[in-house]
Amino acid sequence: MESDLELFRDSARQFFQKEIRPHSERWREAGMVDREAFLKAGEMGYLCMWADEQYGGLGLKDFRYEQILIEENGLYGDPGFFMTLHSRLVGPYFEHFGSEEQKQRFLPDFISGKKILGIAMTEPDAGSDLAGMKSRAEDKGDHWVLNGSKTYISNGINGDVFIVAAKTKPDQPHAVSLFIVERGMEGFERGRNLKKMGMKSQDTAELFFRDCKVPKENLLGQPHAGFYHLMQGLAEERLIAAVGNLIGCRAAFDVTREFVRERKAFGKPLSKFQNTRFKLAEIDAEMDMMQVYVDRMVEVHNQGKLSPVDASRAKLLSSELNGRMVDLGVQLHGGAGYMDEYPICRMYQDERIHRILAGSSEIMKEIIAREILD
Amino acid sequence: MESDLELFRDSARQFFQKEIRPHSERWREAGMVDREAFLKAGEMGYLCMWADEQYGGLGLKDFRYEQILIEENGLYGDPGFFMTLHSRLVGPYFEHFGSEEQKQRFLPDFISGKKILGIAMTEPDAGSDLAGMKSRAEDKGDHWVLNGSKTYISNGINGDVFIVAAKTKPDQPHAVSLFIVERGMEGFERGRNLKKMGMKSQDTAELFFRDCKVPKENLLGQPHAGFYHLMQGLAEERLIAAVGNLIGCRAAFDVTREFVRERKAFGKPLSKFQNTRFKLAEIDAEMDMMQVYVDRMVEVHNQGKLSPVDASRAKLLSSELNGRMVDLGVQLHGGAGYMDEYPICRMYQDERIHRILAGSSEIMKEIIAREILD
Amino acid sequence: MESDLELFRDSARQFFQKEIRPHSERWREAGMVDREAFLKAGEMGYLCMWADEQYGGLGLKDFRYEQILIEENGLYGDPGFFMTLHSRLVGPYFEHFGSEEQKQRFLPDFISGKKILGIAMTEPDAGSDLAGMKSRAEDKGDHWVLNGSKTYISNGINGDVFIVAAKTKPDQPHAVSLFIVERGMEGFERGRNLKKMGMKSQDTAELFFRDCKVPKENLLGQPHAGFYHLMQGLAEERLIAAVGNLIGCRAAFDVTREFVRERKAFGKPLSKFQNTRFKLAEIDAEMDMMQVYVDRMVEVHNQGKLSPVDASRAKLLSSELNGRMVDLGVQLHGGAGYMDEYPICRMYQDERIHRILAGSSEIMKEIIAREILD
Amino acid sequence: MESDLELFRDSARQFFQKEIRPHSERWREAGMVDREAFLKAGEMGYLCMWADEQYGGLGLKDFRYEQILIEENGLYGDPGFFMTLHSRLVGPYFEHFGSEEQKQRFLPDFISGKKILGIAMTEPDAGSDLAGMKSRAEDKGDHWVLNGSKTYISNGINGDVFIVAAKTKPDQPHAVSLFIVERGMEGFERGRNLKKMGMKSQDTAELFFRDCKVPKENLLGQPHAGFYHLMQGLAEERLIAAVGNLIGCRAAFDVTREFVRERKAFGKPLSKFQNTRFKLAEIDAEMDMMQVYVDRMVEVHNQGKLSPVDASRAKLLSSELNGRMVDLGVQLHGGAGYMDEYPICRMYQDERIHRILAGSSEIMKEIIAREILD
Repeated sequence: MESDLELFRDSARQFFQKEIRPHSERWREAGMVDREAFLKAGEMGYLCMWADEQYGGLGLKDFRYEQILIEENGLYGDPGFFMTLHSRLVGPYFEHFGSEEQKQRFLPDFISGKKILGIAMTEPDAGSDLAGMKSRAEDKGDHWVLNGSKTYISNGINGDVFIVAAKTKPDQPHAVSLFIVERGMEGFERGRNLKKMGMKSQDTAELFFRDCKVPKENLLGQPHAGFYHLMQGLAEERLIAAVGNLIGCRAAFDVTREFVRERKAFGKPLSKFQNTRFKLAEIDAEMDMMQVYVDRMVEVHNQGKLSPVDASRAKLLSSELNGRMVDLGVQLHGGAGYMDEYPICRMYQDERIHRILAGSSEIMKEIIAREILD
Repeated sequence: MESDLELFRDSARQFFQKEIRPHSERWREAGMVDREAFLKAGEMGYLCMWADEQYGGLGLKDFRYEQILIEENGLYGDPGFFMTLHSRLVGPYFEHFGSEEQKQRFLPDFISGKKILGIAMTEPDAGSDLAGMKSRAEDKGDHWVLNGSKTYISNGINGDVFIVAAKTKPDQPHAVSLFIVERGMEGFERGRNLKKMGMKSQDTAELFFRDCKVPKENLLGQPHAGFYHLMQGLAEERLIAAVGNLIGCRAAFDVTREFVRERKAFGKPLSKFQNTRFKLAEIDAEMDMMQVYVDRMVEVHNQGKLSPVDASRAKLLSSELNGRMVDLGVQLHGGAGYMDEYPICRMYQDERIHRILAGSSEIMKEIIAREILD
Repeated sequence: MESDLELFRDSARQFFQKEIRPHSERWREAGMVDREAFLKAGEMGYLCMWADEQYGGLGLKDFRYEQILIEENGLYGDPGFFMTLHSRLVGPYFEHFGSEEQKQRFLPDFISGKKILGIAMTEPDAGSDLAGMKSRAEDKGDHWVLNGSKTYISNGINGDVFIVAAKTKPDQPHAVSLFIVERGMEGFERGRNLKKMGMKSQDTAELFFRDCKVPKENLLGQPHAGFYHLMQGLAEERLIAAVGNLIGCRAAFDVTREFVRERKAFGKPLSKFQNTRFKLAEIDAEMDMMQVYVDRMVEVHNQGKLSPVDASRAKLLSSELNGRMVDLGVQLHGGAGYMDEYPICRMYQDERIHRILAGSSEIMKEIIAREILD
Repeated sequence: MESDLELFRDSARQFFQKEIRPHSERWREAGMVDREAFLKAGEMGYLCMWADEQYGGLGLKDFRYEQILIEENGLYGDPGFFMTLHSRLVGPYFEHFGSEEQKQRFLPDFISGKKILGIAMTEPDAGSDLAGMKSRAEDKGDHWVLNGSKTYISNGINGDVFIVAAKTKPDQPHAVSLFIVERGMEGFERGRNLKKMGMKSQDTAELFFRDCKVPKENLLGQPHAGFYHLMQGLAEERLIAAVGNLIGCRAAFDVTREFVRERKAFGKPLSKFQNTRFKLAEIDAEMDMMQVYVDRMVEVHNQGKLSPVDASRAKLLSSELNGRMVDLGVQLHGGAGYMDEYPICRMYQDERIHRILAGSSEIMKEIIAREILD
């Protein structure tokens, strides 16, 4: 079993080194990855690995395989190739709340990478406060009419299928339903690819719904229960963030370690200065602890017992650690750290979203505080 | 097995609650614990649990039992009752390097608590830099003559048997030997009980050796190899520190949590202020991670695989976390936190040694840096 | 003028070196300073220097003289000799709100040090939230009857005259009056000298008022307006705290600098290790900036323009800086830093109250936030 | 005098608002400012204001005018328009070390903005360690031959005249001379405009010298004394950095304050959450202190007394403060903070160079440490 994981890691590493990293520079310029990247990942069986074999999936429930994909992409691929969003942050809604018809209709294309997934919750001016959501869907008998706009939507340009949250009872602020909105539907438009600080190869866009007609069979899950459906995925989403943050931290540590060993100042390698040594030692110790913690969370998750508060702890701490590491990394690189050609420069810019995305550090702290104080 | 541990924890808790905590106040005044405390712990079988049954021990090699004692003492006893020094930081030298004769002569009294142990390495002006050690022992044929002084020696007043390190080859700075110095030996004297910031119930003293005659049979381990003998215990010593730091942190967290839930300001409990919530949430997350890490280190140690650098990471991070927690705890207590009658006040003063003791944070960082950079 | 200040500083330094420091050890044991210390300071003209000459004062309004006393006491005296409380945190209430009769009755004894001053605002369970005050005074026609208790009262044992705040209209939570309560008044009792973390030579006590009869002529200022009277002194109080925190920081810096230059590890002085250098350099830079800032605040205060929010900034930043310095100082001292015989050990314990006293850091932040955000 | 400064500030503000900010977006795309920007600043008299009237300058020695230009550009212009480099980091070398002939030849074009200035010290692999410099110039009787390369050169593409440092005695590592290298000189070439994390409108390039012939009359200052010439400008250079860092911090604070007052979450403005309040209050207090400090340094500089160590303190602290502020600003903006269209996003990327440029924080600490410890 351990050796299965190692084999899987090896072939994943080759995949990312061969099929992803070489395109990274071009994708950054273009502001998005090629659609082919998803198809190639699909060929490898890397998309929605959890899906049952009847839909073309691997039926692989062990989260450690996903962890390996995130890690290998982080070290050898491109963090802007947001496969995990597709496979784990969106796909599972179909698994958990989709009807058999929906599964049959959609899952095969998600598994092959023919259709790329996104999820649309956040709205302009509302942040992650779902109660402030303004999007509305009205039941018109044989279809729904959706109005509103969403922003900061990852895979926003490449995406073919989006799960869109909208309020469905005017007088009940928590009555939210989830809709499957597909490329080409009438009244569904995308804004431009938003220019971001980092994550340059990952497309992020605003989505607009203007009297968008959504067929009844594209309602996902129970009507008005979307809020609770969304909650269910949060623990895994944050664990995924933690895995990504930790590997991001390690990648930054690795390039920095190499740099300080080679670069000399005042006649000796930077790695011989006590300041360099102490600061990297602190991060190393924290990374080591974090790895044990994240691995343990993965184990607990495989047992079906990962609590939202546990996941929040891991997400909070890993993102803060990654933030400290990239800042240190740039500093130890000196002027080079400010130049785009050095990976640490990009890592610094990529990292900054992780203390905000998928529940900001402030939200994580509030979740933990409720557990321990209320 | 797990239930054995739970039973053991229950009875340990009762022991500390009944036999230790009630005397704590008096011991703090006196500057040391009663010798009876060791005898009572001995009766319970809590001292040198690892010792073989032939010497009166339990032959218990599973470190989790020691962990439980440290934790229960930290929460329900008195951190100044330094049983672990006796059992794990000193006793094992006899196990690992003692001759059969020495084991028979000493171990039974250590197990029963009749004789209390200490170790004397640190010297005035030398800190933890063994190369700077000035104590000397000279081979006089049928005995050794020991000269020098040691400082900051825990159990320094109560101790009956000390392992004393001294240089034994004038021209070889690393040629150090270990000697068993016993209460009453000619030329062995103690200074006063040193007044410290915290850890008030734990006696700490200077020891003086003036032409102290040490019988040949009181050499411990190989002559001139003391330096290497001392190194062997370091990983466990730091793991012990980590276990203690984490439980110290938890104890401070617990009293602070209770305080902020009860104390009101501006009409609501302190626990409802966002600053309180966020700061305690951060610590809680870190404690949770640290617990997983320390438990994992204990597991690795039980497998005989704990490396010095792993132990250094755990020691470094746990002591820093404890430091942040006690500082936060005092702050959230407000004026009460400065008053001796509130436990957090003492915890703040007790804590401060832990970032220094058993290898300061700076030493820990240097050890880690060597591993990752050199 | 500048040379006047230098002359004043020189004689103050001699005073603290000769009359205060030599008693410090004894006072710490006793838990309070000798009453004679106040008399001697009075003889020098150091008490209530602002008081008009007609009462025996110097009529010295320039705050820089007070700053010098605080600084010289901090460096050469004993921070537990809380002369400033007497002279500036309490005395001025008589100046600003006292009747002519009260001034004549009290000021001469305050100036000579015959009577020692304290102020009693804080109550058990209420902290610095005045709205939660439970002490009550009832107007009985020819006198007031005061009931309640106060805690953490500095000069609580030595004090002869206390300004006590109490509510005077049952239905108006902000209607507070100030009363002059004198040693020996019927119904006024003190608790024991509270055992504290540090500031060992400064007596701190609980005060109890049980049907305490306060003569009408001992009402200070306007009835029911005590809340506003108390507010007026806050800016200066916080400036005083800032001056004290900064000198406390400098004192800790000085002893640490001396230590790291002398103490060697691994063959070279601690001051040659980059970690030591960088950490002390950071503090030095911050101290230098803080000194310019505090001196500027003193200048502004001399012009009568010091705003409460400016003073809060200075108090906040100086206390946090002092906190970082004493923690660093102990760490760089290693084991010695934990021993009472080293001044840094006491400084660490003394410092901890300053982030709490006279408005905690949290209160300071809230005051600033109101200014910038509301 | 104060009113002169205010008038100057007003017209500078208008200049930056009208002539700089409107082009900023285009310049960022182009990777450099228009040359016209310098000409327009020259028309206003803003370039090399210190130059004597005989060369066309204003003879304005009061540094407060330069401070105003930096501040107004920071708030209303574009921090990538690096006028200060031209005017204060390079121009003064001509003033202090140039011959009368050189002044007459060059200063008028520097004052008018016809020729743009740069300075070339840093080399690939050498960082700010001048001893490691590899560029060499050989005296060929009637000219010098310069070989080597320089990197991270600001105004590297737009620049017409560069001061280039090179070693001029093979056997003396500190024998460095300064050469005036002009656009179009044989053997002088530029690399591409380097892609950086931020400061997008500021061109930064590598410069190459391959048997570059430099006329004898283009030696600046004393031969072999370039090292000492370079030292002389360091204090002012760091004061300039401090002024820029502080205004950068204030700009970030201002946009963040506006954002948190407007953006709501969970039904109330972000500015009403205690975490927001406390964190902005901390920065506000530090900014206030820093402003007093920087203003004081400017005053001292105007008196000709600014020491390198004072300037290093100001540079160190201001850059670290700015770093904390932009990080906080992004965090409080949430997802918006990651989007290029929000100024805080750019500020975050712009800021990162300031803890590295003009002497990294580590170098600053070492300079301070020498002063206080050696």
